[in-house]
Amino acid sequence: MVIFMWKNLLQTTKERILQQRRMSVYNQAHGYEEELVKKKLQQFAGGSVDLTKEDNGIGILALNNPKLMNAFTGTMMLELQERVTELENWKDGKGLIIYGAGNTFCSGSDLNVVKAMSNSQDGMNMCMFMQNTLTRLMRLPLISVALVQGRAIGGGAELTTACDFRLMTPGSEIRFVHKIMGLVPGWGGGARLVRIVGSRAALQLLSGANRVDPERALHLGLSEETLSFSDEAGALEAAQAWLSQYIKGPASVIRAAKEVVTAGRELPLEAALWREKDIFGTLWGGPDNLQALARGLKHK
Amino acid sequence: MVIFMWKNLLQTTKERILQQRRMSVYNQAHGYEEELVKKKLQQFAGGSVDLTKEDNGIGILALNNPKLMNAFTGTMMLELQERVTELENWKDGKGLIIYGAGNTFCSGSDLNVVKAMSNSQDGMNMCMFMQNTLTRLMRLPLISVALVQGRAIGGGAELTTACDFRLMTPGSEIRFVHKIMGLVPGWGGGARLVRIVGSRAALQLLSGANRVDPERALHLGLSEETLSFSDEAGALEAAQAWLSQYIKGPASVIRAAKEVVTAGRELPLEAALWREKDIFGTLWGGPDNLQALARGLKHK
Amino acid sequence: MVIFMWKNLLQTTKERILQQRRMSVYNQAHGYEEELVKKKLQQFAGGSVDLTKEDNGIGILALNNPKLMNAFTGTMMLELQERVTELENWKDGKGLIIYGAGNTFCSGSDLNVVKAMSNSQDGMNMCMFMQNTLTRLMRLPLISVALVQGRAIGGGAELTTACDFRLMTPGSEIRFVHKIMGLVPGWGGGARLVRIVGSRAALQLLSGANRVDPERALHLGLSEETLSFSDEAGALEAAQAWLSQYIKGPASVIRAAKEVVTAGRELPLEAALWREKDIFGTLWGGPDNLQALARGLKHK
Repeated sequence: MVIFMWKNLLQTTKERILQQRRMSVYNQAHGYEEELVKKKLQQFAGGSVDLTKEDNGIGILALNNPKLMNAFTGTMMLELQERVTELENWKDGKGLIIYGAGNTFCSGSDLNVVKAMSNSQDGMNMCMFMQNTLTRLMRLPLISVALVQGRAIGGGAELTTACDFRLMTPGSEIRFVHKIMGLVPGWGGGARLVRIVGSRAALQLLSGANRVDPERALHLGLSEETLSFSDEAGALEAAQAWLSQYIKGPASVIRAAKEVVTAGRELPLEAALWREKDIFGTLWGGPDNLQALARGLKHK
Repeated sequence: MVIFMWKNLLQTTKERILQQRRMSVYNQAHGYEEELVKKKLQQFAGGSVDLTKEDNGIGILALNNPKLMNAFTGTMMLELQERVTELENWKDGKGLIIYGAGNTFCSGSDLNVVKAMSNSQDGMNMCMFMQNTLTRLMRLPLISVALVQGRAIGGGAELTTACDFRLMTPGSEIRFVHKIMGLVPGWGGGARLVRIVGSRAALQLLSGANRVDPERALHLGLSEETLSFSDEAGALEAAQAWLSQYIKGPASVIRAAKEVVTAGRELPLEAALWREKDIFGTLWGGPDNLQALARGLKHK
Repeated sequence: MVIFMWKNLLQTTKERILQQRRMSVYNQAHGYEEELVKKKLQQFAGGSVDLTKEDNGIGILALNNPKLMNAFTGTMMLELQERVTELENWKDGKGLIIYGAGNTFCSGSDLNVVKAMSNSQDGMNMCMFMQNTLTRLMRLPLISVALVQGRAIGGGAELTTACDFRLMTPGSEIRFVHKIMGLVPGWGGGARLVRIVGSRAALQLLSGANRVDPERALHLGLSEETLSFSDEAGALEAAQAWLSQYIKGPASVIRAAKEVVTAGRELPLEAALWREKDIFGTLWGGPDNLQALARGLKHK
């Protein structure tokens, strides 16, 4: 009976947290017509976004359009959204690595898409679509890493900011090149960059549009580590090894740790405290907690 | 007459600020029944939380349950709340140092409490009780320091984040060990940690559950200084000396400085500006300000 | 027709953004009677605040009251407000440098003003006036630099925090001297300082009231660089050279970059995302963007 009630309460709280996690930034109330945007994006095909879910709880997401430096075509934007939905539903997931095919990360959006959508309303629709997807990506209960080989420029640089961490390989660069295109970020990369490196560095990166190499990125907090491998296989292995430090243990606990930090970084203090209490409640007295108590690990 | 009106206005503003300071995160509107929680905690006795108020305006708060590494029993949680109330009412206070007896800081909650309250609702009630107390502790108009000797683990690590500053002694550690217990922080330590070290480091500390030694803590901003004393008397003296730099001058002014920073870190910009103006108004033209003007210290 | 609609949409969005930019923190709804405050300030004359708008898009704002270390008289407060209005209307502006005459920055408010307004209500009125002006200054769509020669103390230190960046010359200092005057910041410098250096350093600076020299300021993030010139002409030239890195390109784009960062630092994540999308929409498909597309600079 007690266990039944506990599970019931647990379920309700979990559902509530999940709802918040999946919540998009824009919906019809914002004048955003997703189906129309998707129909438009569907017209620009090419490349793919591929997901592998490893047994160790790490998802590997590959941007695959190497002849265009993995620029996002319309169908790749649609596929990214589908992969994020798939990751939201992956109950055993603990981590995520995003990388680009052909030893380079991503160059933003495909110029064909850009030219075909070069009026303000289409541009804002595309922004809303990508902001929704990238915000859901950022809020996944997975510890996420952008593995930057080669170049992450424009929208590609913005994509890295939707991950919890960035790892760079020697010779790689992150560059908010928007100014040179007569633009500013629109996929949420500006808002997220301010939260990662602070507003002073963010303003310098956006208004200067300079290359950020691995050393500078480390200094700014835009990268956690410079991996020593430059080839895809070696870099992926090194990124998995780095991530492994943080995903040991039960999925429910790792995912909750990410949820607590998500609440802490997005919400005002009191709302973050409420959420932390709710997330704590999904674990306290649960199987992993009881097992740990039985093992007597408290003071180890 | 003018002085009377000024005092009146001052009183009103002060009251308003004080109300906000004492405001708890949870009350009955959140389904939180404090009296029931207190009755439950009362059943788990042991240890004490002791407060000394020094003439220099520094309060010394000792966690005293050394045979359990100063783990919080139920009655210690109740006593902490009482001590915080006492500190809220201490008009001459300027600073606060929290330390643990027996050359170690605190290991979180006593396992007996944990086992007896290991259902989700009891756990969340305990969280709400401790979040209320630690939020009031954090908002005290006192410049507060956690003096970390030995180990600050689990809830003990969370307690350090409710202080403005942390000072560590050689060989000591702060460790968010929750993951190993199948948990995440629930006393607000997650939300506060994100605000102290940023969300990237917070996610690493929570999901890695690694020991943070004094050097690493300095680097992360989780500690301000490594004191050179390891014994209780020496460490307490060094912590007082460190804190003394920041509490010179009238209590009303030091307390206002803390209030301004509290507003700045908790509130959106415009609300922080309003509050800053109100706090400024409690000092401008007041006795300390007029005395300083008379001394002509303006450009010194 | 399409161009007409685009321009129309652009205009509306631009107006909306501009409205938000000019929005003051206090108005009559806060019991703030600007006309009365201005009448009072008008009584304390002396010095000037002078603006030069260079052809390169950099505005140079000089605080000019050198016999009082450029302390703000009442009329200087009024002039600062007028200069900010002028800068809000300067459509070609990209950057701003604020400096003080006579090789020193600013010592806050003139003691004559202070003494004449030393009751709490007058003090709060002056705060509201200055907070309004400095908040509008901070939100200008210009990349702004406080060039600190000599001393920036009290309100002068607060003024530096309303700029995006601070550059210091050898031997200069920033000092939140308020405590020694029996005060805390009231021009918004506390709230802004917390956002620049974090709450720990802010609390140390306000409660310690120590001099911050260029080296310490660099370490704290309170300064970006120590210029190697100490004379006014050399320092101004060096500051312009530093700023030039960030203002290359069309005014509309540089201004938008500043707007995106302003949104990112002031607003909660979702509101910042909305604003970023709106700002992006003012550029996407616009003349600078189309020209860049035509040049094919995408992957450079």
